[in-house]
Amino acid sequence: MLVKPELADQVTGIALVVQDPYLAYATLSKLFDWRRPLQPRVDATAVIASSASVDSSAEISAHVVIGEHAHIAAGVFIGANSVIGDHCIIGADSRIESGVNIYPDVHLGDRVIVHSGTVIGADGFGFAPYQKRWVKIYQSGGVRIADDVEIGAGVTIDRGALSPTVIEKGVKLDNQIQIAHNVVIGEDTAIAGCTGIAGSSKIGKRCTIAGMVGITGHLEIADNTHITAMSLVSKSITQAGAYSSGTGLEPHQQWKRNVVRFKQLDELAKRVKLLEQAQTDKTE
Amino acid sequence: MLVKPELADQVTGIALVVQDPYLAYATLSKLFDWRRPLQPRVDATAVIASSASVDSSAEISAHVVIGEHAHIAAGVFIGANSVIGDHCIIGADSRIESGVNIYPDVHLGDRVIVHSGTVIGADGFGFAPYQKRWVKIYQSGGVRIADDVEIGAGVTIDRGALSPTVIEKGVKLDNQIQIAHNVVIGEDTAIAGCTGIAGSSKIGKRCTIAGMVGITGHLEIADNTHITAMSLVSKSITQAGAYSSGTGLEPHQQWKRNVVRFKQLDELAKRVKLLEQAQTDKTE
Amino acid sequence: MLVKPELADQVTGIALVVQDPYLAYATLSKLFDWRRPLQPRVDATAVIASSASVDSSAEISAHVVIGEHAHIAAGVFIGANSVIGDHCIIGADSRIESGVNIYPDVHLGDRVIVHSGTVIGADGFGFAPYQKRWVKIYQSGGVRIADDVEIGAGVTIDRGALSPTVIEKGVKLDNQIQIAHNVVIGEDTAIAGCTGIAGSSKIGKRCTIAGMVGITGHLEIADNTHITAMSLVSKSITQAGAYSSGTGLEPHQQWKRNVVRFKQLDELAKRVKLLEQAQTDKTE
Repeated sequence: MLVKPELADQVTGIALVVQDPYLAYATLSKLFDWRRPLQPRVDATAVIASSASVDSSAEISAHVVIGEHAHIAAGVFIGANSVIGDHCIIGADSRIESGVNIYPDVHLGDRVIVHSGTVIGADGFGFAPYQKRWVKIYQSGGVRIADDVEIGAGVTIDRGALSPTVIEKGVKLDNQIQIAHNVVIGEDTAIAGCTGIAGSSKIGKRCTIAGMVGITGHLEIADNTHITAMSLVSKSITQAGAYSSGTGLEPHQQWKRNVVRFKQLDELAKRVKLLEQAQTDKTE
Repeated sequence: MLVKPELADQVTGIALVVQDPYLAYATLSKLFDWRRPLQPRVDATAVIASSASVDSSAEISAHVVIGEHAHIAAGVFIGANSVIGDHCIIGADSRIESGVNIYPDVHLGDRVIVHSGTVIGADGFGFAPYQKRWVKIYQSGGVRIADDVEIGAGVTIDRGALSPTVIEKGVKLDNQIQIAHNVVIGEDTAIAGCTGIAGSSKIGKRCTIAGMVGITGHLEIADNTHITAMSLVSKSITQAGAYSSGTGLEPHQQWKRNVVRFKQLDELAKRVKLLEQAQTDKTE
Repeated sequence: MLVKPELADQVTGIALVVQDPYLAYATLSKLFDWRRPLQPRVDATAVIASSASVDSSAEISAHVVIGEHAHIAAGVFIGANSVIGDHCIIGADSRIESGVNIYPDVHLGDRVIVHSGTVIGADGFGFAPYQKRWVKIYQSGGVRIADDVEIGAGVTIDRGALSPTVIEKGVKLDNQIQIAHNVVIGEDTAIAGCTGIAGSSKIGKRCTIAGMVGITGHLEIADNTHITAMSLVSKSITQAGAYSSGTGLEPHQQWKRNVVRFKQLDELAKRVKLLEQAQTDKTE
């Protein structure tokens, strides 16, 4: 993070760059970028289905595979060894880095960036129990990703069960995030690395979610909610604000003693209640 | 998740679909599946070692690499850009999606599904300290995965040190799970996304382990154990049941005060003890 | 983990093999290794930029892509379907397994091992807010990885913003670790699976960090610090030692009661204080 620590958001740990000089810097930063200018071409080693359409201004790198009826719009870059499934749409000026795997029926908007190792559209985790075994529920919903979304490296976004998983406009996802089937992430929400969101949860707009946060399934998170690192969200959040869980770090030996006490906490609270009652009885 | 929230397991967050209509739906869901019927062929761009054997009914996609003495059984699909190492066995009717990397000496049973970005058989994390440095312990055990296992996207399953890492029949693994060397996962256990299991731990049969759970090394978990999201298991569990850890989510400011108190918990408990003794002394 | 449980480090869960027999075993383990001896060659399907230099003793596998001005030193192995970006340097005797993606301007030292699915040099997660949207801060720093580093499967190490992200000599990283931009990891530190380190944090030398640990941004961790599994480090650690956070595992029903009490902990502590004052008043 290039910003000074004191500018980092104290709650989420996501760096918020708030002053105009930084915005100027962000704008200037593009001048030093490592990306080569787009070279419209289809590498001779790419394998493109005859029914796919690739705009002539796109750059398709070595060993890319593009499936049936896929559409690659103008100005798109697809990095080496990436796979685009059947019926996918990659919107204009999007950039898919090397080694990305996109399953069939995934639509990306314009100016979407996807980093290496990311997988979009794998089957959601759905099974019906039957005689102590699991029966697979096939996942026929796809994934819909809107304009101006950036997705980090090693992210997994599962396809929906019947309707699609949805990432709205301007969402920014850091590395190694897991997004389960039928999740909806609202516009301009930013999520830091290693966070996981379970099935069908709906995250509001302009939320900031720090790293390693867990969000269980079927929840709703209000717009403008902020979650701090490694918190577990297991109920819906209906009111904007900052939320946390966890115990904070301690020296290991001291922590061991406190953990023992945590497990007796309900009992301790009852003992305090008894002491208070005894005191009340005496003073009455 | 397509099921209604009230049907999701309240403890693990894994959706349990319990009524016959859902089983019927699971069965019907296959009709709407995105997978194309298998087309027996070996793509011209695939690189297959001369000593490997590939059944004529298998479909080998573009840029697949298959190592020496590997065996690909009948009805197998291997997606684009996947790599199958030397001496691997891929059982009948298994399906390896695109961009999967399987190291040498990994055996998959029949009807195994492996999603994109998953790595099976990388070296376990083993080092011997020597003069303040780490000396690599080479990992010669492989991985054995039984029939009807499904493995999500971006999962890593390490090879064993001397004997193999083992995934038993019918196990279902969600995305981004980490399974260290010499772990054993019992039949029909289901594990949700981002969970990590450290070396040599043995998970029982028919367990459900929610997302982001950590299980430290060398433990045994009893059959039919259920672990809730983001719990840390650092001791063996000998009795079936539901287990949890963590503090629950709170507004950030309130949480900060409680975290301070958590660190004083042992001291607080001692102070309550003193109050109780004082009261006993007085009433005697 | 091949070592006996009692030899595993009790604090970090990382297996520490402390006796000479184990060092002997580590040395011998190489004899049983699955890796084939290096076969100097460039596979016919590899795509190598004309300005790249590849030492004649290196082995470049099928479908590898090597970018402009990249340098591959003597004795290097690059596995199938891996991508090496422009201006990268891969030091002598390094081994890149299959399906690794390395972005431009990443330098690896000698004898570095990188396992499958790992991504090195993707953009750090940096954005400037502007009118409730996020403006991308382009990341022009690269990554510098020193000699004798081993990196597990599915790891992501982001490029720095202006200066590089740095992994020092002898560092060992397990699977699915996330290292954000401008992090520095000190010599011979070992980190277990699924741990995440946020931007600009600086980890000392010879630390052991267990699995699923979260380290927030802009921190400094002292040399020889040990962190136990699933701890969250949100402040700098200036003194070597062992540190932990979390509550420990409990039966779910008991845990639910204690979690309710945790949220009342500050209030409980105040009530104990009142009881103590009442007692003092009485005995005075």
